[in-house]
Amino acid sequence: MAAGSNASGEDSLIARYFKPLATDPGAFGLTDDAAVLKADGCDIVVNTDALVEGVHFLPDDPADTIARKALRVNLSDLAAKGATPAGFVLTLALRETDHDWLAEFARGLGEDATLFGCPLLGGDTVSTPGPLMISITAFGRVPVGKMVRRAGALVGDRVVVTGTIGDAALGLAVLKGGAVATALAGDVAMTGALVSRYRVPRPRNALAKAVRDHASAAMDVSDGLAGDLAKLCATSGVSATIEAQAVPLSTPAKSLVERGIVGIEAIVTGGDDYEIICTIPADRFEVFAHAAQLAGISIATIGTIVAGYSTPRFLDAQGREIPLKRLSYSHF
Amino acid sequence: MAAGSNASGEDSLIARYFKPLATDPGAFGLTDDAAVLKADGCDIVVNTDALVEGVHFLPDDPADTIARKALRVNLSDLAAKGATPAGFVLTLALRETDHDWLAEFARGLGEDATLFGCPLLGGDTVSTPGPLMISITAFGRVPVGKMVRRAGALVGDRVVVTGTIGDAALGLAVLKGGAVATALAGDVAMTGALVSRYRVPRPRNALAKAVRDHASAAMDVSDGLAGDLAKLCATSGVSATIEAQAVPLSTPAKSLVERGIVGIEAIVTGGDDYEIICTIPADRFEVFAHAAQLAGISIATIGTIVAGYSTPRFLDAQGREIPLKRLSYSHF
Repeated sequence: MAAGSNASGEDSLIARYFKPLATDPGAFGLTDDAAVLKADGCDIVVNTDALVEGVHFLPDDPADTIARKALRVNLSDLAAKGATPAGFVLTLALRETDHDWLAEFARGLGEDATLFGCPLLGGDTVSTPGPLMISITAFGRVPVGKMVRRAGALVGDRVVVTGTIGDAALGLAVLKGGAVATALAGDVAMTGALVSRYRVPRPRNALAKAVRDHASAAMDVSDGLAGDLAKLCATSGVSATIEAQAVPLSTPAKSLVERGIVGIEAIVTGGDDYEIICTIPADRFEVFAHAAQLAGISIATIGTIVAGYSTPRFLDAQGREIPLKRLSYSHF
Repeated sequence: MAAGSNASGEDSLIARYFKPLATDPGAFGLTDDAAVLKADGCDIVVNTDALVEGVHFLPDDPADTIARKALRVNLSDLAAKGATPAGFVLTLALRETDHDWLAEFARGLGEDATLFGCPLLGGDTVSTPGPLMISITAFGRVPVGKMVRRAGALVGDRVVVTGTIGDAALGLAVLKGGAVATALAGDVAMTGALVSRYRVPRPRNALAKAVRDHASAAMDVSDGLAGDLAKLCATSGVSATIEAQAVPLSTPAKSLVERGIVGIEAIVTGGDDYEIICTIPADRFEVFAHAAQLAGISIATIGTIVAGYSTPRFLDAQGREIPLKRLSYSHF
């Protein structure tokens, strides 16, 4: 991505909409072919996540929320890895040049880049006859050797999640119509809250340092709590026992579960949560909880790491295992 | 991108095809959500380039050459910036899971990753209803502050290009049929050479250190020599005078120009060359040329940087300016 004075459409598009976001000196105001990322004595954590129209967002989602989601799903990974955001590069595949849409997209992206301290470093803009696609590669810094891994969870560690689980999947259900939409029809506050969680994730970057300092393993919850926990456990060579009723729910989610509109299975396999799941050694929990409180982020202990290689078990209030037909969303 | 033991289709696809490419310790065998890139006291150069089916490659191009092109267009940028490849992340948007295609794609990608010393660090695999798209973000290392910029060309510097110009655009013309294909019909050697240049660029990474040591400015030629030189000049605040007959041509390209099948305009605006254009101070030229010779890369002086802000002028053998209706390929 570069905004030279050559009058090609691509370059003028970049100069107009994205140059103002390239505030880092290493971006050279998007006038070069590459950017420089200063390591500043740290390890660079690299993460990449792409959004496809019709798959990860809906064609009529607002342009600014599409931009925010594209950046935030990457920021969420950096947070779970204990990294401080350092910048990102953007690949934008567009079917057409819609200036109103691009202006809104760039506004949302720029506001979030500022909010999270993660400036645009460069990118590529290409035309496609297919769906809109946004691919972002984000960079963070951690002290050398300190990236928090999926590996590292030990038997006895507490399994902890941030925020609430299931809201984004319920928000998508609202947008798609059907039972959830019918059950909440007319309740603007509840539907608004759920849709907002689907469209604009709230990455937990404020908790990154506490995760780095105290978690034995961590990842962000993007494909469903059950499936992502299974991945963390598999990489760590352990299993887990989860109390389903301890999974933190928002008021709308709790209402839908209590009324029998959705089961806990849908909640823990829904995906798009962008919360952090991490394992905290018992003797570090108190100091971690204090750090979370200072960061203004709610956390909940939902279970314990146990020995074994089986898929984590979700237990109901009576201690019976809840069968999960699928663990998470998969593209293929 | 992560290949956990969770049995989702996406994860097993990644484990099967891409895990063998994740040879860098910072990739954690693709078992984590992010990778660690060690800076090793250097600056990290970041570049991102995407290929869209039907736009940057043809639907029936071989899978392994699509992979090679996707990586090599990024390696070409690193070479022009004077950087040593350090690794890359891959976003792959697939319409379907075609195992034969994926196996060939991964084979080509893996061979080139090894050839250029640029291991896979991570990525994301998503489904799309649209065209196949490959987005790669590549990383290189340069000594702190030493990335070669588009800015920096000074009046009097020589304008130098590597290899030959125009072959890839002619290769595409061959594949599309038409006058070029007709003119070369039956000449398997010539058409094969041109098509190969279109499908599999030859990035000049062997010249990266010489560029870093001697060039005042550099970029890779991807959108057409005329347009890319114009961008370099604009960023440097200079202009250039180019002797069109000094632009290095391959045997097939020379033949097509001499027979009047294509004009020099098509050659210098065609794009997809993935050669390096750089400016070398006159007193550094001899040592640069020697380094290029040692690296086995042919170079040619095609003109001189001059004062001014106008678009670089291309002159014919009689010193008359060749009018260029367009400078380069643009997506919009």
